[in-house]
Amino acid sequence: MNKTSSLPPSVARLIDAFAQLPGIGPKSASRLAYHLLRAPLEHSMMLADALRDLKARTKLCSRCYNITESDPCEICMDEKRDQSLICVVEEPLDVSAIERVRSFNGVFHVLHGVISPMNGLGPDDLKINELIARIAKQATSDEPVREIILATNPTLEGENTAAFIQRKLAASKVSVSRLARGLPVGGDLEYADEVTLSRALEGRQQLR
Amino acid sequence: MNKTSSLPPSVARLIDAFAQLPGIGPKSASRLAYHLLRAPLEHSMMLADALRDLKARTKLCSRCYNITESDPCEICMDEKRDQSLICVVEEPLDVSAIERVRSFNGVFHVLHGVISPMNGLGPDDLKINELIARIAKQATSDEPVREIILATNPTLEGENTAAFIQRKLAASKVSVSRLARGLPVGGDLEYADEVTLSRALEGRQQLR
Repeated sequence: MNKTSSLPPSVARLIDAFAQLPGIGPKSASRLAYHLLRAPLEHSMMLADALRDLKARTKLCSRCYNITESDPCEICMDEKRDQSLICVVEEPLDVSAIERVRSFNGVFHVLHGVISPMNGLGPDDLKINELIARIAKQATSDEPVREIILATNPTLEGENTAAFIQRKLAASKVSVSRLARGLPVGGDLEYADEVTLSRALEGRQQLR
Repeated sequence: MNKTSSLPPSVARLIDAFAQLPGIGPKSASRLAYHLLRAPLEHSMMLADALRDLKARTKLCSRCYNITESDPCEICMDEKRDQSLICVVEEPLDVSAIERVRSFNGVFHVLHGVISPMNGLGPDDLKINELIARIAKQATSDEPVREIILATNPTLEGENTAAFIQRKLAASKVSVSRLARGLPVGGDLEYADEVTLSRALEGRQQLR
């Protein structure tokens, strides 16, 4: 007798489907299923429809590889944006994070991962060659790439990926930057880890 | 500009639908949506199908009000079960919890909530009248109800609901019990709250 044997098959199936999602254990999955049983029918249907549309309507932008419904994506097509400034991020979610800040007016390039030999991911599994090709292609246009911001995560793999891309770009004239590392705003110096604190010291800014 | 304005509409819609589920905030909702974008198509479809089937296939058992695909439900129809012993629980999830223990061989009655004036839930919003009617009806059968176990949660509202049902049953000859309250197995006396500890003392069991 397994955990869900006393449940109607349709409920058990939904619990199993929820439990396959990241961060949702069997208990949360049950709670979600029973919540939907009590909630109005429209809620389950709305979620079901959204799930069906998800893959049918989305694709990767052929320029920046962000997820989009139109190709090129809205950001790449936006004439007010600076096409000569490319922010390189790991995942589409990172694009949303930077867009939320509202202070970035360049465009993006989504790598779809980081170099991670542990997970069998090499440089060719990411959109790195596509970035190099994009820069080369744009070099002959009226708006050649001026700066690449390497905005991979400040993790070991993120740093390694940034370093790899930087080496790849060594021959080009494009300037390359990295997001500043330091104390998070609102954070407490006392609780900062040594590496963050050491980066905050190294990157200290002259006030006068 | 809202949080999801830089997202394709189909992704934003899925994030919104996920974020309406209990315990899933906007961040988790985004993570789930992007997980499904990367995952095989079958996973989203499986979840979508399960959601569509959920309400179409399930109903409440006309005897115990548990969620079921067949009426009466499998537990009520199981001839090996003791129909004279009814365990009264708040929610269908509680049935699963007790079934998992495997030591209960009676049947259930699901109240679908607790008496909660704060949430506008009175006795008539629950399946309490149905419980009284069920006991009355069964009294004339070959297997009249012998015992009612009030297994509502050990919360204020659960206790009040149990007390209410107990009063309702005062006139009948059915014996009424309540799940034991005490220290959770594997718990630490030092960290037990006063109420639990006081219940554990009151309910202490003679060893010899």
